Amino acid sequence: MVDIHSISTQCTRTEFVGTAVLDTIGLVISGIDETLLEKMNIGKKYRVLGLISSRTGAAGQLTAMDDAVKATNTELLSFDLPRDTKGWGGHGNYIVIGGYDVSDVRHAVELALELTNKNAGELYISQSGHLEFAYSASAGEVLVKAFGAKPGEAFGFMAGSPAAIGLVMADHAVKAADIELINYMTPSIGTSHSNEMIIAFSGEATAVKEAVLEGRQVGLELLISMGSYPEIPGTPYL
Amino acid sequence: MVDIHSISTQCTRTEFVGTAVLDTIGLVISGIDETLLEKMNIGKKYRVLGLISSRTGAAGQLTAMDDAVKATNTELLSFDLPRDTKGWGGHGNYIVIGGYDVSDVRHAVELALELTNKNAGELYISQSGHLEFAYSASAGEVLVKAFGAKPGEAFGFMAGSPAAIGLVMADHAVKAADIELINYMTPSIGTSHSNEMIIAFSGEATAVKEAVLEGRQVGLELLISMGSYPEIPGTPYL
Amino acid sequence: MVDIHSISTQCTRTEFVGTAVLDTIGLVISGIDETLLEKMNIGKKYRVLGLISSRTGAAGQLTAMDDAVKATNTELLSFDLPRDTKGWGGHGNYIVIGGYDVSDVRHAVELALELTNKNAGELYISQSGHLEFAYSASAGEVLVKAFGAKPGEAFGFMAGSPAAIGLVMADHAVKAADIELINYMTPSIGTSHSNEMIIAFSGEATAVKEAVLEGRQVGLELLISMGSYPEIPGTPYL
Repeated sequence: MVDIHSISTQCTRTEFVGTAVLDTIGLVISGIDETLLEKMNIGKKYRVLGLISSRTGAAGQLTAMDDAVKATNTELLSFDLPRDTKGWGGHGNYIVIGGYDVSDVRHAVELALELTNKNAGELYISQSGHLEFAYSASAGEVLVKAFGAKPGEAFGFMAGSPAAIGLVMADHAVKAADIELINYMTPSIGTSHSNEMIIAFSGEATAVKEAVLEGRQVGLELLISMGSYPEIPGTPYL
Repeated sequence: MVDIHSISTQCTRTEFVGTAVLDTIGLVISGIDETLLEKMNIGKKYRVLGLISSRTGAAGQLTAMDDAVKATNTELLSFDLPRDTKGWGGHGNYIVIGGYDVSDVRHAVELALELTNKNAGELYISQSGHLEFAYSASAGEVLVKAFGAKPGEAFGFMAGSPAAIGLVMADHAVKAADIELINYMTPSIGTSHSNEMIIAFSGEATAVKEAVLEGRQVGLELLISMGSYPEIPGTPYL
Repeated sequence: MVDIHSISTQCTRTEFVGTAVLDTIGLVISGIDETLLEKMNIGKKYRVLGLISSRTGAAGQLTAMDDAVKATNTELLSFDLPRDTKGWGGHGNYIVIGGYDVSDVRHAVELALELTNKNAGELYISQSGHLEFAYSASAGEVLVKAFGAKPGEAFGFMAGSPAAIGLVMADHAVKAADIELINYMTPSIGTSHSNEMIIAFSGEATAVKEAVLEGRQVGLELLISMGSYPEIPGTPYL
């Protein structure tokens, strides 16, 4: 019989890179099995895979991975949005990147974990619902693939739950600044049935940031009107 | 940096209408942005939108909205059933109505919030699962659109979780009274993968109510057999 | 008004068979209503239905039902995988079997409940995620229908959550022993958007068991690296 307490929390597996907030784990597989690689439907270019996977959050981790991929010789291969958040109304994530070199991929995963901690500062979780915001001054390939961001332009993202809050946030954001709406998601469209209404947008940095801040202000007012103040699993950075 | 505690729980936004049990918020947008309206795929007839959105429950809120729409010059435009219930086995909801006049739409949302509190009396949530019941003496357009109810006929709804309980409830209900089965949902059919088996039915008021009461009795017996008594977030009214 | 506390936890309904861990209930319907039977899309061969339904877990219950069906004159008719686990990252289940004889079906459900308690010994749930393992020395019709198992061959199953853990487990398992990969699932493929990466495989008993044990060891190391030790709702048996 397995004795789980004989296993240390200090993992020594070569695959283990580290953990971050939001029940996030970062892993590297240095030579993925061929049979699995075929099933994964991510092409056969890379045998070294980097993985980021969280119970809670998606935009923050994808934005983190966007910066990590930019900074390394790696490429986004797939991302999944499980319906999760540990009982809350949103998504988790499962992101796979590939590279030729283990140290490159490991470095990308390390960066993504570090930036996940930072990006968690714009996640607000109350007893009633949650809000998530993301901002990038210059969208890279991950945000392009994941949300249809315009490459090199500023990118903004906002999600509100329960979903109706997200629509009011979106209405304020698109009215507040000259941005281009690039993604629109609801419990039935584009999400995994999460209780969120989400928009993503591209544009000039000033406009995108203004839209995010306007959405955040109205979102916080509505979320707090439901009777409890949100917890923030990081430090707000916007 | 945003100071969330500077924001009051007494929301003063013009969009804010109120809240109700089950983490329900009611909102009104008096002139929705054109770009968003197009994405919403709800037609362009209305620029005034009313929103009801909850973490938990769907039939009670849709039945509430059915009465609210009947009583006002408004129309159901869309409804989503996120997989939610704050970690429990069911749905939340995101309901959008439209109208020409802000005070009409606001009144509809107010009514829906009030009736959501009432309808929550037929929601039973235990440590193991939940049951939800709804009844309307005369189905209006919301129940017609949402569940295929026969307009003007009595309408009944029952959901049981874990799903197997719902099937036994359904078997008793359809045997107990002369009703017409109008909707059948399982984790794979018609739900957002919720752990529920659900039926809805139309018929004469007496028959429909009898079927609901029979389903409720057997459902409660089976749910309670799992070892804990349910909490009821309102006052049972059937 | 209904008085729920007048209802006993000792259920006396003829449908009630019993309960098991993981919020599992076992039920028998001795003569299912014809209208419901048609909606269920399970054919019309049987009027006696056996039901197993849980908030948490699927492989353990399906493996339990595989043995139960083998031991009785019953047949698997359908299974659903709701996105549930009481707020955790996985599935629940809703399994329907059929038979000609009430005592046969009841016996199958009783067996499945008993084996569900046993199989729950290979479910590991921590504050961060979960792992599930299943093993059968000889796959019967339930495992064939549910996972594409090779009939009569040994069958293995492993799920890891957050999903990335499952991929590393899978990579180790398929490298550890000569097994045939028969099923591959992710949050987007084959699951109900659960936060799991899952594989199932067939082969020689020794190889299949070796693969499961290798996956379990690496899975536990990674799960525990996330900072908390898992709870086990039974006694590990592998």
